[in-house]
Amino acid sequence: MSASAPRPAVSVLGLGLMGTALASAFLKAGHPVTVWNRSHAKTGPLAAQGATPAGKAADAVAASDLVVVCLLDNGSVREVFETLGDRVAGKTLANLTNGTPQQARELAAWAAEHGARYLDGGIMAVPHMIAGPHAYVFYSGDQEAFETYEPAFAALGGARFTGTDPGFAAVHDLALLTGMYGMYMGVLQAFALARTENIPAAGLAGPLTEWIGAMLTGIGQDAEAIDSGEHLTDVSSIAVNRAAIPNFTATFRAQGLTTAFFEPLQELLDRAAEQGHEADGLSRLVDLLDS
Amino acid sequence: MSASAPRPAVSVLGLGLMGTALASAFLKAGHPVTVWNRSHAKTGPLAAQGATPAGKAADAVAASDLVVVCLLDNGSVREVFETLGDRVAGKTLANLTNGTPQQARELAAWAAEHGARYLDGGIMAVPHMIAGPHAYVFYSGDQEAFETYEPAFAALGGARFTGTDPGFAAVHDLALLTGMYGMYMGVLQAFALARTENIPAAGLAGPLTEWIGAMLTGIGQDAEAIDSGEHLTDVSSIAVNRAAIPNFTATFRAQGLTTAFFEPLQELLDRAAEQGHEADGLSRLVDLLDS
Repeated sequence: MSASAPRPAVSVLGLGLMGTALASAFLKAGHPVTVWNRSHAKTGPLAAQGATPAGKAADAVAASDLVVVCLLDNGSVREVFETLGDRVAGKTLANLTNGTPQQARELAAWAAEHGARYLDGGIMAVPHMIAGPHAYVFYSGDQEAFETYEPAFAALGGARFTGTDPGFAAVHDLALLTGMYGMYMGVLQAFALARTENIPAAGLAGPLTEWIGAMLTGIGQDAEAIDSGEHLTDVSSIAVNRAAIPNFTATFRAQGLTTAFFEPLQELLDRAAEQGHEADGLSRLVDLLDS
Repeated sequence: MSASAPRPAVSVLGLGLMGTALASAFLKAGHPVTVWNRSHAKTGPLAAQGATPAGKAADAVAASDLVVVCLLDNGSVREVFETLGDRVAGKTLANLTNGTPQQARELAAWAAEHGARYLDGGIMAVPHMIAGPHAYVFYSGDQEAFETYEPAFAALGGARFTGTDPGFAAVHDLALLTGMYGMYMGVLQAFALARTENIPAAGLAGPLTEWIGAMLTGIGQDAEAIDSGEHLTDVSSIAVNRAAIPNFTATFRAQGLTTAFFEPLQELLDRAAEQGHEADGLSRLVDLLDS
């Protein structure tokens, strides 16, 4: 798209905090924007910014070839899609609602049956980060649709296409957030432990950030071990970590804190040792995460 | 200590991978080093580097005013200390063995009864990082002893004094490693999830590092919330996260992966919501980690 080409029209369905941020970003980038929300009052602030409020989802869909969807969950998306039926024919549906890979695949199948192109998206940002330098969105599904609208998606932040399997955006989104939840729960436990000794969280935050950040730089090596199946290590073995965990559980217990987050780790390390993987690195545990 | 002052003698008790790395670092920094290990054979490589092997722990203690201890666990440290008895009088015992705050306090009390100065240490490095630019050690206990030997400790990496409470080094060490274990288990689950969709770990490692690293920069704000008790957020609330976790558990279950690591998080989020904290940020969860 050249700089002088007109920006394509975009309709945004769903105006929660995130949907509102998305619509606002498209407006600021110069797109004609039509907005719809189940409770109509939420269209007000966006109308004041120049958006066209639609009374019905079908009116919003009629207004633009690109329809961006951001609802509470994919059950709500399915309900709205059902009310639209064949009126989505010829449209590109870009569903940025949080969900599972399976839901994305089911919605893609629905869209195909109704003549629409489907993209699923996983937004790697909180609402106030949208359009900022660190926000980006994983997309998957119809690659031609992605390429058509990539310049429009740039209004939201980075746009990363993960594959034509419509479930892949959700896989990437869930994988990164799983890593984040792990880090986050580790950090909160660290703060809780320090607090039992009256050590302020503010004093621990710097060393924690530095330490976890340094350890993060090593996960590329774990990735290589996982992809190759070669987990032998001379750095930090299953045996060494298995011997260390009781220091954590004993301390957390003595300080009156839950050991619930260490228990599945201890169980994994015990099982890995029983299976003869004591000399391997922690990357081996990835093989034991089956249910 | 001026550049021309002689380096003080150091004795190192315990020559596992870490103890050997410590002794080697002291040797390279120009300290006279005496080494002892329960199985004498391990002194060989260090003797070849210029260390004096001691046949008994008591001989090693007699040889230096600074005695650095790095054994398998603090049970072993206590056993060795008991064999030494009052021969530790006037010495500085710097125990860098992994352990709990309570063990550190008990060993400090033992040392005081036997006329020795006690420092506890938590090594923030794996053996091959010792003396490198990123290694450091948390110390706690006798501050005067720490200041006396700070230049010697610099041979190992950074030296950070955390307080006169001998348990504080272990608290800091365990807190940082707790954060790391959380991050690490989150990352391994992310890799496991991607693998169920044949997405190579190598392709995910970059985005994971970038994302977790970006989220890490926010923990200073969580620390402020924890120290102030003001957890209200407009970024990512208990309610939003609580609604999201079922996407993770449903996906992990559908992909044949364990949900064991999400269960304690879901339980915490449910309990926080029941207690009326839905509008708070995740930092509020630190109040619910009591056992």
